[in-house]
Amino acid sequence: MKQLTVELGERSYPIYIGDGLLAQAAELFAQRGISAKSPLLIVTDTAVGPHYLEPLAAALRAGGYTVAAHTVESGEKSKSLAVLQDIVATALEAGLDRKSAIVALGGGVVGDVAGFAAASYMRGVKFVQVPTTILAHDSAVGGKVAVNHPLAKNIIGAFHQPELVLYDTATLRTLPPREVRAGLAEMVKHGLIWDASFVAWLDENAQRLLALEPEALQYGLFEGCKVKAHVVSADEREDDLRAILNLGHTIGHALEAVAGYGELLHGEAISIGMIGAAKLALRLGCDPEIYTVTKRLLQHFELPTRMPPHLDTDAIMTAMSHDKKFKEGRMVYIVPTAIGRVEINKSVQAELVRDIVNELKEEA
Amino acid sequence: MKQLTVELGERSYPIYIGDGLLAQAAELFAQRGISAKSPLLIVTDTAVGPHYLEPLAAALRAGGYTVAAHTVESGEKSKSLAVLQDIVATALEAGLDRKSAIVALGGGVVGDVAGFAAASYMRGVKFVQVPTTILAHDSAVGGKVAVNHPLAKNIIGAFHQPELVLYDTATLRTLPPREVRAGLAEMVKHGLIWDASFVAWLDENAQRLLALEPEALQYGLFEGCKVKAHVVSADEREDDLRAILNLGHTIGHALEAVAGYGELLHGEAISIGMIGAAKLALRLGCDPEIYTVTKRLLQHFELPTRMPPHLDTDAIMTAMSHDKKFKEGRMVYIVPTAIGRVEINKSVQAELVRDIVNELKEEA
Repeated sequence: MKQLTVELGERSYPIYIGDGLLAQAAELFAQRGISAKSPLLIVTDTAVGPHYLEPLAAALRAGGYTVAAHTVESGEKSKSLAVLQDIVATALEAGLDRKSAIVALGGGVVGDVAGFAAASYMRGVKFVQVPTTILAHDSAVGGKVAVNHPLAKNIIGAFHQPELVLYDTATLRTLPPREVRAGLAEMVKHGLIWDASFVAWLDENAQRLLALEPEALQYGLFEGCKVKAHVVSADEREDDLRAILNLGHTIGHALEAVAGYGELLHGEAISIGMIGAAKLALRLGCDPEIYTVTKRLLQHFELPTRMPPHLDTDAIMTAMSHDKKFKEGRMVYIVPTAIGRVEINKSVQAELVRDIVNELKEEA
Repeated sequence: MKQLTVELGERSYPIYIGDGLLAQAAELFAQRGISAKSPLLIVTDTAVGPHYLEPLAAALRAGGYTVAAHTVESGEKSKSLAVLQDIVATALEAGLDRKSAIVALGGGVVGDVAGFAAASYMRGVKFVQVPTTILAHDSAVGGKVAVNHPLAKNIIGAFHQPELVLYDTATLRTLPPREVRAGLAEMVKHGLIWDASFVAWLDENAQRLLALEPEALQYGLFEGCKVKAHVVSADEREDDLRAILNLGHTIGHALEAVAGYGELLHGEAISIGMIGAAKLALRLGCDPEIYTVTKRLLQHFELPTRMPPHLDTDAIMTAMSHDKKFKEGRMVYIVPTAIGRVEINKSVQAELVRDIVNELKEEA
């Protein structure tokens, strides 16, 4: 088992990564002071629940915990206020009190909606992340939780740090290959924004990661979480530095919105967005190696680098202007300046971005 | 204008109390660093909006702010996730960004739902309280915001402190007399839990307060807010001391729930609840003066001291067991031990409370 700590003063918490960790859940919960006197609620979805809900619940019950469960539909639609209301109903019926914890067992959607339930139930109860996707190595660290509004994604939420993250890599074996690849896109992002040596490792170990080799997976997830934890520790509430985590996301979110959620997976959209950011770096006069390495890495991971050409450029530009990263009339872009380093550029011209969006449709 | 500060480290904020303060809104907002570059959203209700929305919006616009407004139905039903979703739609349409503020213009319901919108919109934007009821001198201070769930009151919420509280006592002149009296119940509570000299002042000045004499009103609101601010400063997240603010609320909330929200105003329910707490004090052997003074004060303010006899005792006992103050199987009661002093008693027997509920139906 590997362990690292997200340093946030009195809100610091550990991330445990290992094969078969679900079986140790009760012990790890108890170490973090989660009381067995108050009931727990596990929130999961229809894709993950059938595989891992009973093993997790059984492990917790064996350790003396009282466990209730709530299963939401798999998919982005479950990030809604209506689902939040359903989760709270289950929490009330199960008798959750202020000392209880809500446990997210699943990927980013479950983490987000269960996390917002934990942030708001009785004005905040404890929260545990049990990620079951590779993508969630990103979303499960950092405390950003939210639901969607019909008019905007992730617009209603909170910063609510978990008590612990319990990452059982055995749960990744049931992931569809397309989701494995998409999850690795966030791992590539973590290398590109922070750590050139991790980029070099990813360049050499792509095949091992795609094959879900346990050792490679644990190392990659550990290093990816480490980058995320560093950035979050330095800027918990996204005032400044934390924006670098959005590499590839400005274009990526717009692509997801315009394509309709589901056509492109999140990781696929940000893969294309990272190519866009590398092209922006080229235009701004940075080392061309940035573009070469970014593209090679993403191709190693069999991720898309070309934008679906049928998507309308105007619609993408409009979607970008609705992004939360739009502050007082200006858009913020994250641009690579070297391998393992990015800058927050607040003065990129819209016309330049439009050119790049069009180029992305032509990308080989 | 009177001013006091709620001391919460970097989240400290001022409360301004004065006659005609709405006109100074832009200046006071600017002093607190609320940017005029980002739009504001005023949330109000159908009772308050027709009187004070335009004066407040005009004052802010005159100071260079861009102002949008959202009006909810007056009443407890507006504390819902559905109304939250509507407020967020208006916020998005008005272009609110992370530097924007949401302003609650109204009583406790508006403060709660607008405050939760501010706590959760884009994971938290600035919040301003502009209370227009006497009751809100309690709810507007302390940062507790929430909406209701069909199964429980105030169960989905946050701790989100305002940037400032702007209390224009001129807005109280349109309050129905019954709401004036009910609001004064919280003022009595603040005296009883903390400040014997304030209790003595209330005893002598009840008629001036009921007549809304500006000087008496400003003094009473200032002293009431001061007690609340002291307690909140000492215990922002309701871990311990803050529970004393619940004097009269354990029985009071149960009465509201059983009578159906609306039959009893909140202040009326806690008036009866404070009589209940004073009776509990008698049974526990405290100075009988506590009961005498509590009852005399509440009668001065023409508040009810007797429980509607048709309410079912079993239903009231069940409602109490659903209270958020129920922790790990035990109920917490706030019991007066002297005038201006209370204790948090965690071991009151249910049977004793049942006796008192029955006695409250007989109260003269």
